[in-house]
Amino acid sequence: MARRYFEDFFEGLTVDLGNVEFTAEGIIEFACAYDPQPMHTNPDAARDSIYGGLIASGWHTAGAYMRLLVDSVIGQSDSLGSPGIDSLRWLKPVRPGDTLRGSFTVLEAKGSRSRPDRGIVRSRGEMLNQDNEVVMQLEAVNFFGRRPASA
Amino acid sequence: MARRYFEDFFEGLTVDLGNVEFTAEGIIEFACAYDPQPMHTNPDAARDSIYGGLIASGWHTAGAYMRLLVDSVIGQSDSLGSPGIDSLRWLKPVRPGDTLRGSFTVLEAKGSRSRPDRGIVRSRGEMLNQDNEVVMQLEAVNFFGRRPASA
Repeated sequence: MARRYFEDFFEGLTVDLGNVEFTAEGIIEFACAYDPQPMHTNPDAARDSIYGGLIASGWHTAGAYMRLLVDSVIGQSDSLGSPGIDSLRWLKPVRPGDTLRGSFTVLEAKGSRSRPDRGIVRSRGEMLNQDNEVVMQLEAVNFFGRRPASA
Repeated sequence: MARRYFEDFFEGLTVDLGNVEFTAEGIIEFACAYDPQPMHTNPDAARDSIYGGLIASGWHTAGAYMRLLVDSVIGQSDSLGSPGIDSLRWLKPVRPGDTLRGSFTVLEAKGSRSRPDRGIVRSRGEMLNQDNEVVMQLEAVNFFGRRPASA
């Protein structure tokens, strides 16, 4: 895959990031480390909760999106990091056995005024489940280096 | 610790969430699973990067904040989940050996119009390093159940 520079991130670009499956073991492992609430760590307690069963930590879903994004986009780019996320919404529970598909869409791309070697890309990221329901949506900001004259 | 209900989250409430230490091993382990960029996974490549050494994934710092928040606040509350995060900013790199302190401040607390059994709490979360620099800041929304008449 060709290396992506700022110039390659035009408004409207959409990239299918592929799939990731969530398992009970993976949900529990993440949650024990980073979000040890019973609906994420204890199947019996989760069954009796308002969720009716084990669900993934929202931060786990965010991390899974990031992994897909690095594998498909950022890892093959001249990435210069991210200042942050403008909005992150958890819209539906993610359960064991769910397969989530990631999607990345460029909302805006503009050159940096203060740093002429880079540009700023605002994007919408989504994770959709096997029923095509959007389970998570975020708006992110990323910096990418401009294509050098030689590339 | 007494169980926290919506009524206990008043505007201006601040909770010190305690500390967490970041190690090179922990940074690499998280990043290999969720954010496998070289500045997070490969000390040699990280040294030659714009960061001058290994730094933690921003999602790792967010997860570490969530862990502190669950241990100190959410785990002892009548939490009814979160619709999402309104803003998340990574302000300084987090490096191996850094000890981060979490802080939680209530920005706004209001009853739910549609669900009288609960309230909506907007909060600012911060992670500060040992030099008292804010390395991450977020604004979150959480739902908490109202205190029952019997409690």
